[in-house]
Amino acid sequence: MSGHLAVVGLGPGDPRYLTPEADSALAGAQALYGYGPYLDRVPRRAGQDRHASDNREERARAAAAIGHAARGSSVVIVSGGDPGVFAMAAAVCEEIESGPESWRALDITIVPGITAMLAVAARIGAPLGHDFCALSLSDNLKPWKLIERRLDAAASAGFVIALYNPVSRARPWQFGNALALLSRHLPPSTPVVFGRSAGRPDERVDVTTLDAADGKHADMATLVIVGSRETRVVARPGKSPLVYTPRAAVEVSA
Amino acid sequence: MSGHLAVVGLGPGDPRYLTPEADSALAGAQALYGYGPYLDRVPRRAGQDRHASDNREERARAAAAIGHAARGSSVVIVSGGDPGVFAMAAAVCEEIESGPESWRALDITIVPGITAMLAVAARIGAPLGHDFCALSLSDNLKPWKLIERRLDAAASAGFVIALYNPVSRARPWQFGNALALLSRHLPPSTPVVFGRSAGRPDERVDVTTLDAADGKHADMATLVIVGSRETRVVARPGKSPLVYTPRAAVEVSA
Repeated sequence: MSGHLAVVGLGPGDPRYLTPEADSALAGAQALYGYGPYLDRVPRRAGQDRHASDNREERARAAAAIGHAARGSSVVIVSGGDPGVFAMAAAVCEEIESGPESWRALDITIVPGITAMLAVAARIGAPLGHDFCALSLSDNLKPWKLIERRLDAAASAGFVIALYNPVSRARPWQFGNALALLSRHLPPSTPVVFGRSAGRPDERVDVTTLDAADGKHADMATLVIVGSRETRVVARPGKSPLVYTPRAAVEVSA
Repeated sequence: MSGHLAVVGLGPGDPRYLTPEADSALAGAQALYGYGPYLDRVPRRAGQDRHASDNREERARAAAAIGHAARGSSVVIVSGGDPGVFAMAAAVCEEIESGPESWRALDITIVPGITAMLAVAARIGAPLGHDFCALSLSDNLKPWKLIERRLDAAASAGFVIALYNPVSRARPWQFGNALALLSRHLPPSTPVVFGRSAGRPDERVDVTTLDAADGKHADMATLVIVGSRETRVVARPGKSPLVYTPRAAVEVSA
């Protein structure tokens, strides 16, 4: 089997975040698979097939791309951000585990990218400068009770929390519930960062506080960072504030 | 004040992970500051001052670079990985908050990079494919009791755990204690990944299990990923295994 599959992280979207390794993998592909809007970010090159699919079809997309590569082609699956963070790399591994034994012989490369929480954090300072968690708020693939348990654990132990997939049309109430739950552990003044389309022309990064945070600020393209008790906001005249979590922590909270 | 400060993430070390934005910031700098081994990764360019300092001197380095930029220069502080993850961006924010009021007027850009956990995860599959935490095991800047509390919270709530700074010469026992603590929550067969120098010529990524993991496998340049109860290992004939955490989780563990 001479095929090859690469799962490539495009980063936040702007080419200035695309690593040379990712660019090279894209240039060398015979076929590209991905969610339509991500594929649209990849320049068209002669001789490359493009297979766009819907957002919810990760496993079908992974299986199609693996099968294509296993027939001897050089195939790329594109992923927004980093493919290993709430994205395509896990779906590819799932398909390889459950698929034909021959798929395990396929050459696979996973090309990391700048995931949304790093792009948003960089825009506003260093909110992830100390221990933190990354948690998807989507209860499509896990029970809401488990999400609540993880929010409780993370907030009470003092982790900063990066929330992926905070809101979608099918999940209107979850984000509000999550904020209410976090308010039981954290002061009303806890900094909350909403980062939308970080690193793209329509980028918007806003800082608010936990008591003022609202689901209206978020959509599917938003990454939310909820600070810990240690997270600080530094006002700057005529500039956006810096939000950061100090490297030192002293509190062993109850 | 016409100076500018950029805090630039170099990624794991190899130029193929350096984003165009980071490359451009490095090329445009009049002065570079950083931990010596990180500075050594940056190509020398005519007319650029270089100010190397020791690993432990983050705040002094940040203050020197900010002061230099505030006098009207274009200054870069280099950081391994991503500057916002256990790296220089938080130190810069700390100095700006505590320094002269005029420093708040300085133009600052933080340039994200591929942090070690993303590079290591990509090398081995998708161990961070579901909810995860990033935790520094260094007790130089926080009490060990707080680290234990966070390990307890993360493991019992089912987060995968990425451990930064697992071991140093001055911290010989902490990593072993952390593994022992995690063993109270997780089965002996839980996958553990040791990634050393991921993305560099001397890269080494090993997979073991929690009961076999040992501090001897780790040093300052190692990033350790401890799986959750859901994390899986897919054996592949003649190839390294794939380690991944499925996107779906069903268990609401006690």
